[in-house]
Amino acid sequence: MDKRIERYLLRVDLSTETVRRETIPETDIAMFLGGRALGDIYLYRELAPGIEPLAPENKLIFGVGPLTGTSAPGNGRYIIHCKSPQTGLWNGSLAGGHFGPELRKSGYDMLIIEGKAEKPVYLLISNEGARIKDAGFLWGMDTFDTQQLIKEELRDQDYRIACIGPAGENMVCYAGVVSERRIAGRGGCGAVMGSKNLKAIAVRGTNEVRIADQNAFKNALKLASSDLSSNPDMVKGFAVYGSAMAMPTMNEAGITPWRNWQQGCSDKAVNLFIQTWREKYVKKDVLCHSPCPMICSKLVVAEQGPYAGVLTEGPDYETLYSFGANCDIDDPTAIFAVDSLCDKLGLDSISAGLSISFAMECFEKGIIKPDETGGVDIEFGCSDLLPKLIHDIAYRRGIGYFLSMGTKKMSEELGHGSESFAMHCKGMEIGGYDPRAAKSVALVYAAGARGGCHKAGGGSNSQSLGEYLTGDKRFLNEGKAKICFDVRKKKIIVDSGVLCSFTAGAYKMSTIMELLNASTGYDWSEDELYLISERGNHIERAFNVREGLRKSWDVLPDRLTKESVAFGPTAGSTVEFEELLDDFYRLSNWDLETGIPIPDRLRELGLAEIAADMERY
Amino acid sequence: MDKRIERYLLRVDLSTETVRRETIPETDIAMFLGGRALGDIYLYRELAPGIEPLAPENKLIFGVGPLTGTSAPGNGRYIIHCKSPQTGLWNGSLAGGHFGPELRKSGYDMLIIEGKAEKPVYLLISNEGARIKDAGFLWGMDTFDTQQLIKEELRDQDYRIACIGPAGENMVCYAGVVSERRIAGRGGCGAVMGSKNLKAIAVRGTNEVRIADQNAFKNALKLASSDLSSNPDMVKGFAVYGSAMAMPTMNEAGITPWRNWQQGCSDKAVNLFIQTWREKYVKKDVLCHSPCPMICSKLVVAEQGPYAGVLTEGPDYETLYSFGANCDIDDPTAIFAVDSLCDKLGLDSISAGLSISFAMECFEKGIIKPDETGGVDIEFGCSDLLPKLIHDIAYRRGIGYFLSMGTKKMSEELGHGSESFAMHCKGMEIGGYDPRAAKSVALVYAAGARGGCHKAGGGSNSQSLGEYLTGDKRFLNEGKAKICFDVRKKKIIVDSGVLCSFTAGAYKMSTIMELLNASTGYDWSEDELYLISERGNHIERAFNVREGLRKSWDVLPDRLTKESVAFGPTAGSTVEFEELLDDFYRLSNWDLETGIPIPDRLRELGLAEIAADMERY
Repeated sequence: MDKRIERYLLRVDLSTETVRRETIPETDIAMFLGGRALGDIYLYRELAPGIEPLAPENKLIFGVGPLTGTSAPGNGRYIIHCKSPQTGLWNGSLAGGHFGPELRKSGYDMLIIEGKAEKPVYLLISNEGARIKDAGFLWGMDTFDTQQLIKEELRDQDYRIACIGPAGENMVCYAGVVSERRIAGRGGCGAVMGSKNLKAIAVRGTNEVRIADQNAFKNALKLASSDLSSNPDMVKGFAVYGSAMAMPTMNEAGITPWRNWQQGCSDKAVNLFIQTWREKYVKKDVLCHSPCPMICSKLVVAEQGPYAGVLTEGPDYETLYSFGANCDIDDPTAIFAVDSLCDKLGLDSISAGLSISFAMECFEKGIIKPDETGGVDIEFGCSDLLPKLIHDIAYRRGIGYFLSMGTKKMSEELGHGSESFAMHCKGMEIGGYDPRAAKSVALVYAAGARGGCHKAGGGSNSQSLGEYLTGDKRFLNEGKAKICFDVRKKKIIVDSGVLCSFTAGAYKMSTIMELLNASTGYDWSEDELYLISERGNHIERAFNVREGLRKSWDVLPDRLTKESVAFGPTAGSTVEFEELLDDFYRLSNWDLETGIPIPDRLRELGLAEIAADMERY
Repeated sequence: MDKRIERYLLRVDLSTETVRRETIPETDIAMFLGGRALGDIYLYRELAPGIEPLAPENKLIFGVGPLTGTSAPGNGRYIIHCKSPQTGLWNGSLAGGHFGPELRKSGYDMLIIEGKAEKPVYLLISNEGARIKDAGFLWGMDTFDTQQLIKEELRDQDYRIACIGPAGENMVCYAGVVSERRIAGRGGCGAVMGSKNLKAIAVRGTNEVRIADQNAFKNALKLASSDLSSNPDMVKGFAVYGSAMAMPTMNEAGITPWRNWQQGCSDKAVNLFIQTWREKYVKKDVLCHSPCPMICSKLVVAEQGPYAGVLTEGPDYETLYSFGANCDIDDPTAIFAVDSLCDKLGLDSISAGLSISFAMECFEKGIIKPDETGGVDIEFGCSDLLPKLIHDIAYRRGIGYFLSMGTKKMSEELGHGSESFAMHCKGMEIGGYDPRAAKSVALVYAAGARGGCHKAGGGSNSQSLGEYLTGDKRFLNEGKAKICFDVRKKKIIVDSGVLCSFTAGAYKMSTIMELLNASTGYDWSEDELYLISERGNHIERAFNVREGLRKSWDVLPDRLTKESVAFGPTAGSTVEFEELLDDFYRLSNWDLETGIPIPDRLRELGLAEIAADMERY
């Protein structure tokens, strides 16, 4: 126990302009580790049920974990918790880069932001604590200019900054938080920052990140290194192609949605494959934070054509899906342009792309009429529409005002059966893997705590998608709940570490355990870590139950359960959901009738207060 | 003499990939001081007459002066010499910011770049010298991304970088060199960088800038401070409004050109006045380099409207003129957008704006037909055309290919009398002060070494424009050559210091003398400094004579000598040029018949070799 390291959080109340350092209780570390699970319990404890997500009562929790800022490959990530303005539910949103490690080096494992500033402000955090600074001059700026201008104002180019763009200022419900060229995109944490008049957080930390047992940590790093060496194809795949590497396989398997999920593959896909365009457009392989052998960011520049001069880091598979395949656009440079624009304006590219593809289908079906779009024909394949639509979303003007509401509210307003192809779960637009083609993904989307996310609810592009290799077995429900559950179990630990899920995809659980034990001075077994994971999973669920979520909310869009695609390897397949869900509830220790975490199990996990809460529903 | 400080230059040959440090001979310092005049003699000596500006034989000379990087207010400037691809003549292009001081701190007063790299490269300069690095990954990037990506590659955010954008890569003849958000815009030095496959120069210098006599320098700084205190209105004017402050006075006096110089004022002007929009759009007053009380850069952001999210530093008076008044556009946010775009793509905003306004007038007059513009109606006042036209110029595509040639070549190709309203001198588009309304400006444009520049040929917004205060006398020729000559005389010293001409506008010549003497250890009198200035003026002229320039080249566009504006305070006035020119030649010691510097005078100035050259013509 002596070796254990004290960990602190910084609490900033923007309403009262007060800043306080608090010790994170040892018991919280023991039960919740850090990052995701630790943020979960703080969010649960500190937010009253039913608050408005954009009211001062919501909080933002920026969290890192015991591995952040260490020399463990994949250590450069942070997580932002809040109540989501998009779903009204739990939200935890991750991003890579230097911001997390810098926050940790300033001496804090968590930053809790409360209240609302009277005027635009930014936070300045250093080893000495935090100051609230005027951000009037930054309001209206995009996220790249904001970072640059803060560095200039502070006359120190080494600050690491997380900030919002115009989309966050205007409280678009799917606005994200951007640091460097990376966005914590999903769930609208950028809108919450905007609602608090908080433009940015600038951090400069120079403390050493302490490790409880240096020798043990060195040994654990050797294990990590060996795990990475044992997965050369995976490491190389990310290093050469990034997450976009998946598209050829996914398209071939009928997993990549096209035309707002009306197709599962397309002949045009080859134009979107990074394998096709890497040589022409990728300028550099970029590491988000050292060390990491994955180097998964691809810096691309269009040198010619209508989008000449555009630079972006990415696009990831998801953005190639959301704005590309799903809008039936196969010009990769158009996707580069909107990827860059989403980062600059601070918009989630999945929700933005799906809101647009949903409008395209409504336009195609005559549910949206030409005179309702400001004279623009919002048609599939029209890449030249995208930049203006995205601007209009960020500024919530014209047709962009409608698109900024997201597919759930758009479809509720439109009616005419559009709800069946509004591709969201619980208000969050879903990722680019079709559950009709790989059944475990249905649970990732429909039973995930933050809605239709392909990551938080499991991990749809790692183990679960190994399904596509199983031949016709991928169309069966059998064993699929277990796949989703196992991925989520590990994912919550990875997100609590905090480790990058790409890098950690190569790590054995025993390696993660050794890394965590060496860095913290604890002596967790794998099973004990899984208990921490289960706590996180329950708390996220309990948070949502408190907000009204029941079993009936765990559903997929009708298109996935009632329609099948017309051609390709997945033609004829739909999701039969009931059976999948029951299996998953059983594994999760959630009540089969209600979907509420089982109180007795919560008590076994030391979550008596939450158990008592759950018994009230 | 003991106190004098050795000064070095760095010579980089991109063809042979060699780097050499050379001592700048003491005699060169004594005769040419630094910056502009020193660069003049090197350019004259090292370039053979008749070379192609975009051939490897052209050179780029980046120069600073004895005051660069010191604590003298206005010290943050550098100058780039080359043979201009726009005019085929002498070019010296200045910009403010940290690049110049950083270069000086690396130990060099000059950087001479020769030859041509086989593939895109960038230069990395430190106290230890220079290295040539691969810039393949930077090619195609805009100037802001380029600076950021180099800092990331070098893992040091403190580098100061000068670079080109796509316009320079594509060798647009009016492409500039950008550092931070500032451009050395005029004359096409960016195209020369592009022709050499040189994307950028990154500098990090940590040497102290040495001062020969610290006590004397402290005293000189007191004089500088006192000069600035004696000009409170000027300092405050720049600090609050920047160079844009001039527009209300200029428009009222009929000096600001509108609609491609068809008008000298407009009722719409009020919308362009920074006095009108400062409160709405200016986020911050920005210093290009400390110390300076002028703080003349205005950081603006449009928060709403079609250009929402655009940030730029500026626009200066000249950009409000070139894209605003002269294109008959009065939406300041449209000007912010194109100002930012020109900086990012690396385009001179005066030449770009005037090339467009010229095309607008040709379109109005039917000289350019709708089917020749790719279907676009290039009409005065159409602000929404500008972004696309500017992109197309930078990439030399479509109508942009034509616009990228500049007004001289455009009008030569079009004919139909368009030459008379192609608003350039010697191929360089002219600044925003109408000589019909203030006669000395005629000489600034027509007898300036780099063509129609409002700065290099004199200084059209300081003393010379005091003319507008002289009532009807401003329409007379008498005494106007002397005004232009005196301004130029001081300007060449200021540019050799190198000092900012805005800041130095407040300095007495005696103050500049004290600053220069203290920093160098010389003991120049004011008259001796003026001899240095005269040397510079002659060398620039001699360079041009060698390229073919004679008296017949010193002309204004016909519009200024044959047409007058229809309304406003300057209606009826034209420029009677012959008399002005003779007066100016006399003052300059240039031959009245030919315009060639008088050899005997050159010999008196110690320029015997140039005298011999001149005698051959």
